[in-house]
Amino acid sequence: MSDASTRSGTLWVIGLGPGESHLLTPQAREALDAAERLYGYGPYLNRVVDEHDPRRMASDNREEGARARQALTDAAAGARVAMVSGGDPGVFAMAAAVCEQIERGPAHWRTLEVQMIPGISAMFAVAAACGAPLGHDFCAVSLSDNLKPWALIERRLKAAAGAGFVMALYNPISASRPWQLGRAFELLRDTLAGETVVIFGRAAGRADEHMQITTLAEARAEWADMATLVMIGSEQTRVVERPDQPPLVYSPRFAPGCDPESPA
Amino acid sequence: MSDASTRSGTLWVIGLGPGESHLLTPQAREALDAAERLYGYGPYLNRVVDEHDPRRMASDNREEGARARQALTDAAAGARVAMVSGGDPGVFAMAAAVCEQIERGPAHWRTLEVQMIPGISAMFAVAAACGAPLGHDFCAVSLSDNLKPWALIERRLKAAAGAGFVMALYNPISASRPWQLGRAFELLRDTLAGETVVIFGRAAGRADEHMQITTLAEARAEWADMATLVMIGSEQTRVVERPDQPPLVYSPRFAPGCDPESPA
Repeated sequence: MSDASTRSGTLWVIGLGPGESHLLTPQAREALDAAERLYGYGPYLNRVVDEHDPRRMASDNREEGARARQALTDAAAGARVAMVSGGDPGVFAMAAAVCEQIERGPAHWRTLEVQMIPGISAMFAVAAACGAPLGHDFCAVSLSDNLKPWALIERRLKAAAGAGFVMALYNPISASRPWQLGRAFELLRDTLAGETVVIFGRAAGRADEHMQITTLAEARAEWADMATLVMIGSEQTRVVERPDQPPLVYSPRFAPGCDPESPA
Repeated sequence: MSDASTRSGTLWVIGLGPGESHLLTPQAREALDAAERLYGYGPYLNRVVDEHDPRRMASDNREEGARARQALTDAAAGARVAMVSGGDPGVFAMAAAVCEQIERGPAHWRTLEVQMIPGISAMFAVAAACGAPLGHDFCAVSLSDNLKPWALIERRLKAAAGAGFVMALYNPISASRPWQLGRAFELLRDTLAGETVVIFGRAAGRADEHMQITTLAEARAEWADMATLVMIGSEQTRVVERPDQPPLVYSPRFAPGCDPESPA
């Protein structure tokens, strides 16, 4: 933050993490406190600011470009502006929308002080809740075909499965995108074994967190909703059962045959 | 944390994030304060605890399995134990080592309270420092061939480049692994254009942070060290030049042809 908090014309793009204050970084908290305007999707703003706070500039979920332009316009007029994102602002969220609008907007937007403040992204909250499913090479894919052709999503899922990446699937399902996750499961069953571990991680890192651990053969798209991140293990991902506790899911650090301590 | 901090026999696996306290979550801070023993690689422990703190149980970098066993043994004896990792404990770090030792260890280790506490991983700190290079689908690959055959790393790099993933390369180089990053650049030049954006992100999120933005054609392995994360853009990743400030690097949210607002 340093001198930024004492200057005008600043835009902070802030990652709120999963939503509870115990996973909000001090850097994010400091920027939220210093901001004169707070932009973001309403439900994310609700996590950090009162409904009647006059600094609040809520907008709908689909309006990222317009929201970024408003925030940049305010910052260019001299305000200290915060733009909030759930999770990390750089992961399928507002940081790219802000950069895109700076590139396309008036030249003086390039002189603004813009700072991205990272947060705990959903896949790390899900991973922490389950053990260490991202313990080896992994990828993150948004299943939203509002943003790219479905054929490109299929190509990426096939490439990732074929190369042994663990996959974190963001935006798995919504009212307007009801079939994509089911199709992704079908496609992945062509490449991966039925016993491959699948995690439905809902509201990870929040009070109503719910983790469902299953297999690719059993996984059903209707178990996901908009608050769910779906994780597909690699063929090495393992489940460690525990008495009176949920199992631990982890992806070994070592590829098969490379572990000096392995009993195998 | 809830009742965990008042019970014996607990192991917290804690992500410290990049290292500075402004990116350490309150949840991580609370667990560090509650712990009676602190395990970890010495330089990571130095970030959160005094050199003479009697709770400190430092170990070398290569001893993850043994360190996890010691921590689990202490927890099983009733102690409240913290294991610290830089970044996020689930990303090429201690959480998988702990799960692995629980699976292989005595049955009573499965009854311990084990909690993973997420942190800001290096790739998100690098992304935040540069703009939004991870704004579209991405993957994370460790270049350490201590853990897997080099051929598998090459297969993953090829698959990721071919499918248009942005790549975060962890563990790019060390004294004992001097040639791997250079070989990765060579390989990627077969698939990706020479103008593809490459970021050398050193000490991201810390006071001595240094970001170097270049192209795949220009990138040289010797610019990286053990504190560097290397990021390879996709063919869509863009650089927005700014007067008197570092450029912003971002990967557009929309695939080519899918952006309703695009001037193209």
